[in-house]
Amino acid sequence: MAELNIKPLADRVLIEPVAAETTTASGIYIPDTAKEKPQKGVVVAVGPGTNENPITVAVGDTVLYGKYSGTELKLEGTDYLIMRESDILAIV
Amino acid sequence: MAELNIKPLADRVLIEPVAAETTTASGIYIPDTAKEKPQKGVVVAVGPGTNENPITVAVGDTVLYGKYSGTELKLEGTDYLIMRESDILAIV
Amino acid sequence: MAELNIKPLADRVLIEPVAAETTTASGIYIPDTAKEKPQKGVVVAVGPGTNENPITVAVGDTVLYGKYSGTELKLEGTDYLIMRESDILAIV
Amino acid sequence: MAELNIKPLADRVLIEPVAAETTTASGIYIPDTAKEKPQKGVVVAVGPGTNENPITVAVGDTVLYGKYSGTELKLEGTDYLIMRESDILAIV
Amino acid sequence: MAELNIKPLADRVLIEPVAAETTTASGIYIPDTAKEKPQKGVVVAVGPGTNENPITVAVGDTVLYGKYSGTELKLEGTDYLIMRESDILAIV
Amino acid sequence: MAELNIKPLADRVLIEPVAAETTTASGIYIPDTAKEKPQKGVVVAVGPGTNENPITVAVGDTVLYGKYSGTELKLEGTDYLIMRESDILAIV
Amino acid sequence: MAELNIKPLADRVLIEPVAAETTTASGIYIPDTAKEKPQKGVVVAVGPGTNENPITVAVGDTVLYGKYSGTELKLEGTDYLIMRESDILAIV
Repeated sequence: MAELNIKPLADRVLIEPVAAETTTASGIYIPDTAKEKPQKGVVVAVGPGTNENPITVAVGDTVLYGKYSGTELKLEGTDYLIMRESDILAIV
Repeated sequence: MAELNIKPLADRVLIEPVAAETTTASGIYIPDTAKEKPQKGVVVAVGPGTNENPITVAVGDTVLYGKYSGTELKLEGTDYLIMRESDILAIV
Repeated sequence: MAELNIKPLADRVLIEPVAAETTTASGIYIPDTAKEKPQKGVVVAVGPGTNENPITVAVGDTVLYGKYSGTELKLEGTDYLIMRESDILAIV
Repeated sequence: MAELNIKPLADRVLIEPVAAETTTASGIYIPDTAKEKPQKGVVVAVGPGTNENPITVAVGDTVLYGKYSGTELKLEGTDYLIMRESDILAIV
Repeated sequence: MAELNIKPLADRVLIEPVAAETTTASGIYIPDTAKEKPQKGVVVAVGPGTNENPITVAVGDTVLYGKYSGTELKLEGTDYLIMRESDILAIV
Repeated sequence: MAELNIKPLADRVLIEPVAAETTTASGIYIPDTAKEKPQKGVVVAVGPGTNENPITVAVGDTVLYGKYSGTELKLEGTDYLIMRESDILAIV
Repeated sequence: MAELNIKPLADRVLIEPVAAETTTASGIYIPDTAKEKPQKGVVVAVGPGTNENPITVAVGDTVLYGKYSGTELKLEGTDYLIMRESDILAIV
């Protein structure tokens, strides 16, 4: 993963989504039920945080986030999501 | 219950739901009426909390929470719910 | 009333509703008009409170609360309501 | 007016409504127009107030309040309204 | 204008509306267009204010306020409006 | 422009709109597209501001504001708008 | 790019949009999917910021922002957008 030329503002985090079908080393996968399911991704850039919302995730963390969280963008040919850290549910 | 490789963010709590039909040692069960009923589960992981919302439940606590609270996820083959601690009604 | 094995979280209060038809020693009853009427119950457990919302009712207090306040739950065969203290109107 | 066995919580106030047709010594009556009109009543009990909302009316004050303010309840055979002090417009 | 026996609560202000057709010494009148137009009135009583909303108008000030602001009431045979000071646009 | 006999309250600002067709020395005009366009006007009176919203524009500033901002009023035969300073986008 | 005669208020930022078809040196382009996509632009003027919302972007920064953010305006023949800094997602 090359160094990306992007600096998220405030408490925003840039995430590279991991395909939902993939099963990771920690064996997490998304259950097939009616409720909204979290998505998984890797943090690739973080904003500086704010006094109210300091950033607690780090680049490289694998995180879970809501299915409809964030805004899509493409950098150097790869799809990313940018969202507020409060949209992230957990580090896995 | 094996150690789970998940760290909820902020004031989020990971809960393993207990089947609604089960009657526990403390004899709690969910009444069959029209109002929304609380669900029961065991806390399996807690976030670090925030200044505004410190975490007051502990891993191992059996808790009641609203029927529609939280987001489902599956870890190591087990279904969990992740929710904010403020969605938890009581420790039982 | 046996000791209940439940600890409400934050500013929540567990209440055992008193049947609306009963007239208590203080002679309170609910008028039969079109407006939403308060319900009466006895506080059986209180949360620790929060800095913003300290608990001011005590176990044993008879309280009035809005008709649609709280969440039903059954403990040891008895129906209770769990609600935030701010949903309680008065001690009677 | 006998001593009432009720303690409003927080910034709530118990009011005994005065019939809208009555003209008091101060000569106030409610105009007959299209806009929502205030109602009049006498304060019979006040809560302890909160830091944010201290109580500024006293038992015995005649007050004006919005037509749809408060919750009805009956104590010792009399109809009352319980409302937050912020629903009271003025002392008359 | 006789002394009125009314004390507005908090940041409320009692206003005696001035008929919209009247042109005052300062020559203000309300334009006849589609937008909501301000109304004019004289302050006849003010509340004590609150920490957050101190009162900055004085009895006798002629003020402009939004068309739908306030609650009507009649005192000693005269129609008044009671509103929060934040509903007042300007002193004219 | 004669001295106007009006004192806006709090963080309100009185603005004399400039006709949209006029092109000023700074060459600003409003583009003809589907989005809501800002309007231009000159500040003729400002309120004292509040602790939370101090006033940063001055009488004489030409400002841009949203098309639907403010309340119309007419003073000495001229149409004005009164709005909160937060409705002003920029000084031009 | 000539010096522009405009001072955004508070935490507002003036942005000159970059045409979506253009691919910049950093290779960013907007993916063609169903989700709302961010737009790109160059900051040409910034407000003084507020205590709550200090300005962290600088004139000359290329930024991404939501498709429906901001208000259009034209200065010296060029189309710009003015928006709050909180509408900006990232510097690229």
